Amino acid sequence: MKALIKITLKNGVLDPQGKAIEGTLNSLGFSGVNDVRQGKLIEVDLDETERQAAEDMVERMCEELLANTVIEDYSFELLA
Amino acid sequence: MKALIKITLKNGVLDPQGKAIEGTLNSLGFSGVNDVRQGKLIEVDLDETERQAAEDMVERMCEELLANTVIEDYSFELLA
Repeated sequence: MKALIKITLKNGVLDPQGKAIEGTLNSLGFSGVNDVRQGKLIEVDLDETERQAAEDMVERMCEELLANTVIEDYSFELLA
Repeated sequence: MKALIKITLKNGVLDPQGKAIEGTLNSLGFSGVNDVRQGKLIEVDLDETERQAAEDMVERMCEELLANTVIEDYSFELLA
């Protein structure tokens, strides 16, 4: 089973990387671009085949390693 | 209109960051975890309200700045 995990900065947390992208897009001539935020995308391939067990496992992975829950939110989807 | 852009390494391109995550997950006791790949997630808020124009714009952003198309693939979705 494959898990697709999205990790994004919480609202209100400064995102200098996003700001840099926004500035560069503007200077490249893209107008009307606001509020760029950069996050992480992690794809994990799991041996686990049972959906509930896989969900629990990915949840623990996010809490323990993948996301810094002080400043980041995470969400994930399982692809069969 | 909001765009959610996913940028991932192409298959076959080495992903040391993914390997590091995989190793750490294993050492934390998560078993059955294979092939971890890390990518980028970019959220862009656009003034553009017409769907087709927004799609073209995001496509150009990816080609010109956001993705390194030699080693990365990109995909995106527009959220109304």
